[in-house]
Amino acid sequence: MKLARCTDGGAPFWAVVDTKRGEATPIAGAFAEWAPALTAKPENGSDALKLAGAPRKLAELRLLPPIERGNRVVVAGANYAKHLNADFGMKSHSQPVAFLKAYGALIGARDPIRYPPLTTELDHEVELVAVIGAQRVDRNNPLTSVLGYTVGNDVSARDLQRSGPPGVGMDLFAAKSQDRSTGLGPWIVTRDEFASGSPALRMTLKVNGDTRQDASSGEMTWDVAALVRFVDERSSFEAGDVLFTGSPEGTGQGTGRFLNPGDVVEASIEGIGALRNVVSVKESA
Amino acid sequence: MKLARCTDGGAPFWAVVDTKRGEATPIAGAFAEWAPALTAKPENGSDALKLAGAPRKLAELRLLPPIERGNRVVVAGANYAKHLNADFGMKSHSQPVAFLKAYGALIGARDPIRYPPLTTELDHEVELVAVIGAQRVDRNNPLTSVLGYTVGNDVSARDLQRSGPPGVGMDLFAAKSQDRSTGLGPWIVTRDEFASGSPALRMTLKVNGDTRQDASSGEMTWDVAALVRFVDERSSFEAGDVLFTGSPEGTGQGTGRFLNPGDVVEASIEGIGALRNVVSVKESA
Repeated sequence: MKLARCTDGGAPFWAVVDTKRGEATPIAGAFAEWAPALTAKPENGSDALKLAGAPRKLAELRLLPPIERGNRVVVAGANYAKHLNADFGMKSHSQPVAFLKAYGALIGARDPIRYPPLTTELDHEVELVAVIGAQRVDRNNPLTSVLGYTVGNDVSARDLQRSGPPGVGMDLFAAKSQDRSTGLGPWIVTRDEFASGSPALRMTLKVNGDTRQDASSGEMTWDVAALVRFVDERSSFEAGDVLFTGSPEGTGQGTGRFLNPGDVVEASIEGIGALRNVVSVKESA
Repeated sequence: MKLARCTDGGAPFWAVVDTKRGEATPIAGAFAEWAPALTAKPENGSDALKLAGAPRKLAELRLLPPIERGNRVVVAGANYAKHLNADFGMKSHSQPVAFLKAYGALIGARDPIRYPPLTTELDHEVELVAVIGAQRVDRNNPLTSVLGYTVGNDVSARDLQRSGPPGVGMDLFAAKSQDRSTGLGPWIVTRDEFASGSPALRMTLKVNGDTRQDASSGEMTWDVAALVRFVDERSSFEAGDVLFTGSPEGTGQGTGRFLNPGDVVEASIEGIGALRNVVSVKESA
């Protein structure tokens, strides 16, 4: 089942998406009200949801990032050895690292990517994103706390990433919390639609049709269960929080090919869907 | 004027605090509804607010962290040269660094500090905290966007802070977003009660009555205006967001004296007030 957060210009609402019919049927209530029961048994599908009205035409709705304000955006880094080695020249470590991204950094599946004024090295990172649906993570079986998966493009300002004080390290706030830059969506696909375990899905990122990233989420160093547990042990998840699980290799950080105004950026994950975001004209400071 | 966020066991509410009378009078509406007008003219005091009922006894209320869920907790680091040099052995840098703290890490002025299971080096950091009250920061005059100031104790797990991958740097998420550990409060004192400019206030932190930190916020490397601008240029503030402005020297990181279960931790800033939090028994993993 596909679950989207949408707007017709008014208040955002959640909806069950039927891509074949091109329709979205609104769900009654906030995410935290219906998601825990659905996460417990995602195979029950829309029987577990209370729908709120007639189907709407998907083409007439704007797809918002599938996360409510007030929930956390957690990003795991250093989770693909090739990205770490080839793009950053760094060695693998004994554990991943996590950080928070500002909610205001998110954009929906068709929104423009803002080109922030302080950077000249705007970069892409296609990432599998797990959506927590349980009120509390079961650390013994973390995947049962995952409602489903969506696609993220963790857009990063690489020059700002290097600007942090030596000893403190990368400035991940400046690099990755720039307003209206990070694509998330187009919807959440519930976990019953994937094989059990951590999903091994083909992930691609294209810029103007040219493939820049092409890897499998099965290559991640710490799988989704391990990452959910790692983060939750340090700072608890709540229903509706999302977890970016890291980028594979092929970013501009390694190739020197960064994003430019007007670029069409498409981030796709097999079995989920695609983000298609156009980079805006660079904002003046 | 003092503005607190409180609960009597029911829904949180904002209130104007009169410490002499020991009373708190509820304010009608959410922070974002009344704060921008008050921030524009804080000297208007409670004339700018719509009060919602009779005064309540302060002693019968629990003081919550003065920030609503959905707002951001931004922390600036490396902002006191002595802390950086004496406690971390690091040199000063050309700019500060900022990161996000999870909302769930916050506790109120009298709540217990949770001792998280993964650390054995729990540390204190008294910090002046600026509360953004304007809907948008005026970067040409950032202090006009500040409603007022409160006290923070940016409790940090130092061993976890060192656990991040080399090259990435400090794991500030694991160190500083631990559930229910960071004191914030007891209330916001509006900026009209301080001299104009970035406040130079005495800040102290005591553990069981023993003074561990004693400095002035006037010693910060980048003042409040510079920090607000620095952060906002990278990721925009909204009304209700808070900014921790960094810790002076004297932390356990430098002295080796960390917090222990049962410790009474008092963080005070001149003209604002004090947090008094007791460290809980260490949680098992």
